[in-house]
Amino acid sequence: MPTLRLALCQVNPSVGDLSGNAELVHAWARRAADAGAQLVLFPEMALTGYPVEDLVFRRSFVAASKAALDRLAADLDADGLGELPVVVGYLDADGPPQVSPDAEPGRGARNAAALLHRGGIVATYFKHHLPNYGVFDEDRYFVPGDMLTVVRLGGVDVALTICEDLWQAGGPFAAARQAGVGLVVNINGSPYELNKDDLRLPVVRRRAAEAGATIAYVNMVGGQDELVFEGDSMIVAPDGALLTRAPQFVEHLLVHDLELPAAGDGGDADGVQVADGLRLVRRTVEGIPSAPSSPAAVGGIIEPVADEAEVWQALVLGLRDYVNKNRFPSVVLGLSGGIDSAVAAAISVDAIGADRVIGVSMPSQHSSEHSRSDAAELAKRTGLDYRVEPIQPMVDTFLANMSLSGVAVENLQARVRGVILMALSNQEGPLVLTTGNKSELAVGYSTLYGDSVGGFNPIKDVWKTLVWRLAKWRNAEAARSGETPPIPENSIGKPPSAELSPGQLDSDTLPDYDVLDPILIGYIDGDLGREGLVASGHDPAVVDKVLRMVDTAEYKRRQSAPGTKISMKAFGRDRRLPITNRWREDG
Amino acid sequence: MPTLRLALCQVNPSVGDLSGNAELVHAWARRAADAGAQLVLFPEMALTGYPVEDLVFRRSFVAASKAALDRLAADLDADGLGELPVVVGYLDADGPPQVSPDAEPGRGARNAAALLHRGGIVATYFKHHLPNYGVFDEDRYFVPGDMLTVVRLGGVDVALTICEDLWQAGGPFAAARQAGVGLVVNINGSPYELNKDDLRLPVVRRRAAEAGATIAYVNMVGGQDELVFEGDSMIVAPDGALLTRAPQFVEHLLVHDLELPAAGDGGDADGVQVADGLRLVRRTVEGIPSAPSSPAAVGGIIEPVADEAEVWQALVLGLRDYVNKNRFPSVVLGLSGGIDSAVAAAISVDAIGADRVIGVSMPSQHSSEHSRSDAAELAKRTGLDYRVEPIQPMVDTFLANMSLSGVAVENLQARVRGVILMALSNQEGPLVLTTGNKSELAVGYSTLYGDSVGGFNPIKDVWKTLVWRLAKWRNAEAARSGETPPIPENSIGKPPSAELSPGQLDSDTLPDYDVLDPILIGYIDGDLGREGLVASGHDPAVVDKVLRMVDTAEYKRRQSAPGTKISMKAFGRDRRLPITNRWREDG
Repeated sequence: MPTLRLALCQVNPSVGDLSGNAELVHAWARRAADAGAQLVLFPEMALTGYPVEDLVFRRSFVAASKAALDRLAADLDADGLGELPVVVGYLDADGPPQVSPDAEPGRGARNAAALLHRGGIVATYFKHHLPNYGVFDEDRYFVPGDMLTVVRLGGVDVALTICEDLWQAGGPFAAARQAGVGLVVNINGSPYELNKDDLRLPVVRRRAAEAGATIAYVNMVGGQDELVFEGDSMIVAPDGALLTRAPQFVEHLLVHDLELPAAGDGGDADGVQVADGLRLVRRTVEGIPSAPSSPAAVGGIIEPVADEAEVWQALVLGLRDYVNKNRFPSVVLGLSGGIDSAVAAAISVDAIGADRVIGVSMPSQHSSEHSRSDAAELAKRTGLDYRVEPIQPMVDTFLANMSLSGVAVENLQARVRGVILMALSNQEGPLVLTTGNKSELAVGYSTLYGDSVGGFNPIKDVWKTLVWRLAKWRNAEAARSGETPPIPENSIGKPPSAELSPGQLDSDTLPDYDVLDPILIGYIDGDLGREGLVASGHDPAVVDKVLRMVDTAEYKRRQSAPGTKISMKAFGRDRRLPITNRWREDG
Repeated sequence: MPTLRLALCQVNPSVGDLSGNAELVHAWARRAADAGAQLVLFPEMALTGYPVEDLVFRRSFVAASKAALDRLAADLDADGLGELPVVVGYLDADGPPQVSPDAEPGRGARNAAALLHRGGIVATYFKHHLPNYGVFDEDRYFVPGDMLTVVRLGGVDVALTICEDLWQAGGPFAAARQAGVGLVVNINGSPYELNKDDLRLPVVRRRAAEAGATIAYVNMVGGQDELVFEGDSMIVAPDGALLTRAPQFVEHLLVHDLELPAAGDGGDADGVQVADGLRLVRRTVEGIPSAPSSPAAVGGIIEPVADEAEVWQALVLGLRDYVNKNRFPSVVLGLSGGIDSAVAAAISVDAIGADRVIGVSMPSQHSSEHSRSDAAELAKRTGLDYRVEPIQPMVDTFLANMSLSGVAVENLQARVRGVILMALSNQEGPLVLTTGNKSELAVGYSTLYGDSVGGFNPIKDVWKTLVWRLAKWRNAEAARSGETPPIPENSIGKPPSAELSPGQLDSDTLPDYDVLDPILIGYIDGDLGREGLVASGHDPAVVDKVLRMVDTAEYKRRQSAPGTKISMKAFGRDRRLPITNRWREDG
């Protein structure tokens, strides 16, 4: 059996940064070559970043992606890396944009993989299965591929596949068995979800069995707007054995030697139609780097970490990449002394360092003494840049000039805080962070243009009960390694309050979070309706109250959502472009 | 040839309001029956409203839609309307949601039409062509139908189709020819775009020729979040003759007698496969109301109106439905004396009446005398509820307590105005309107959490040069009918200014709008890149400046977009639900 040394490059590209991503691929291909690799793999759309959303429809961007691929192939060759086969994801198109008047049936933008060798493109594969659930919209963006590309290199037949191809039975992996391949490459841009790693390995195993071949799964890592890609790249044998696995949430070069079956004369021939209507396309790569001498490369197997560690790392990476890829010098957030802002501040410090985090205490007449002292204590423990801006003078001036009462006065305080944070942002440049947890956002327990002011919320996807678990976990981690736990115990232990009126507590308005969160999780994440929630044991009266709050919160969001958007067409909806995006039409 | 009296019900349903929409259908079916109709048509998804977005994935909502359809059929029958065939769009499903773990291939949610008769559902059709461009995402939501439903009634064979089926050749309309039908019904939820009516009629004509049959095209009317449905229902003969056409932007009952070819023994049989892989499904309706005696019903032909009139009506309808369907008592907006807020105020008054519009002048030390007097003059002409809230005391208090300079001070003024409007909204209940035009939004010429504060912007899709044209058109209309022109001439004529620093004018920062708008239209609406814009004659230096401003504005929006959203899955993107939505899980 031939031996092949694979290098899986779990890298962190930036959307739209074609030249930067090409340099990234180049540098990691060099590292892989130095490690003796004979085949190097990069993630899905590594050259463009992922997802590029409506950039797909810009002809200039498609042309730039193709040109960047050609240049990359030439540059690798010029730099002495031409012999090394490199698989890289990019944006291709074989026709006008599907949305344009001159669109052609069955042609258009393609989510593509190319195999580069000796300065050229030896083989191309177009993603066959396009995902359209959850965060995915690929039927909007891409035309599905109708071929299975198999490349013979180093005496082994290797099939190319992309991401979702892996998640459905009967497609390219079944075709790969018909082609008799020894290895299936699967390149990914697969976003993190809690416990998704528990799901992914069994799927890779099923597909390895279906193809009767080894699977090399390489995933992107990094933050992109509201998504975090987690890595977790791996290689799985045909019998389901996990051969090697990379860590989550960091860039990683996973190098591993594989003994693979020699390509024979079996398997269907070039041009034959195989499973799922795919046309088999066979290509051959002549002359790859020779098999490295001993010692054999062994990638090792990283074991999954605890849920809290996984979520913390995801939040840290998501914030760090949002701040750095968008080139913000620093972040600023309000510190109330409560648990949410304390956890958001600790995440920020872990993500970009205390010297780039500004925390502002903005006490009012309703702020308790412990609010101020807990905020100061957090600042002391973490070393962030701490400021105090009392809001009472501004609040009093508004009240002296307008006739306001009740909730209008409560919200006024939160809005004055929003104005202060945005003034600091304009004056000094930091990105404003908001710190509402997912539970309070779901039930609308926040002030529009008040505590919701800001460009990024590191804990918007974290239920309140998980916020507490994260705080305890982070403090325990610190204690274990002899560091100062960042979050004051008092912020963790005290009952939550918005402190917008005298003696106010969350529990005046909301069910206890231990009761609230399971209902919200069922309704929002699990898509259970009233009936399903009651059937799973929740008090019907509480369920009704919570569902009404969630639906009403939607109504409250009405006052803020539309209005600043640019439509693609008169009266149409937004052009959907990535926020984090380095592509500039004007170069 | 048999004669058939058709009633096209161009109605305005509300998303999620199943019982209200069923009542609407019932009431209009009664009106149609009173007019002697023998076949009544309602728009696409009239029973659920359209688009329902991710409500499609809620099993409880799908079940409620099907139950509402059954109840509607029974209610029509009980009310003596059972003999009258009624075609109505609704949400159906023949399998679990496509996004669920128990999804079945080829099954799931359906964009459906039902023909109701004698208390039951005689025939069903599932939309075949699913649109995925512009505002549409139907591949995400629906499984495409694979049948052509033909119903024999009153001696005529009638095919059922839905919206996008009309916009593509070779599908159900080609199949309808093979089936030998006399009439093709096409029910629609087709949103307004400028000049789309010029596009639509030729398409209907082409499809009539393809099917060799008369086409009855019925479209929805009304506002839904960022969309406006325009009506423009019509009937076109096989030779392309326009037989009747309804007005735009109003509910309308279009009743018209058609002489149609008698159903014969020609055409393919039930169960046969016809064009585009569709399976022919034939149904028969026995006993429809007898042909009405003379006089013949003639629907008449409404001629299209001028662009400005069309846009004005669309803006008025969009705002009115957003306010009323979401049950806001009134609206409030800042009046600067400039053209944008003046036009927004005039639209508001036309939409919901002067007594429901609050206009607030919020002068600062930089406000010119004419700003105050022009705002007051607008209030006097329109009769809206006029208030004055000077911002200087609040601005001065912020400045006394923080060290701010430059753009931070400019933005502070806009943000204090935002706080005032939101305080009024909390205190008295009005929806806050923002009034930035599309040109200034595109180049980022506005303040985050300042003049962008609000829940709805009536002119967000209107380029600045069109704002001026609309103002002049509206005043001329008023003058022609002897009313007071609502917009002060001075607001139209003076040079635009943000008035946030001494002597500031838009032209200090932006190219003249006559130069700016064509570039923006090419870049944003037309998807021209730098090269295309220069090739069409624009100054390269100006193009570069404008493109950089647009791309930078995207960057500015970073500070506001994310952060208040609720994800469907941890770290995933938003569940996409309609804002305007009456569906309540808790009943």
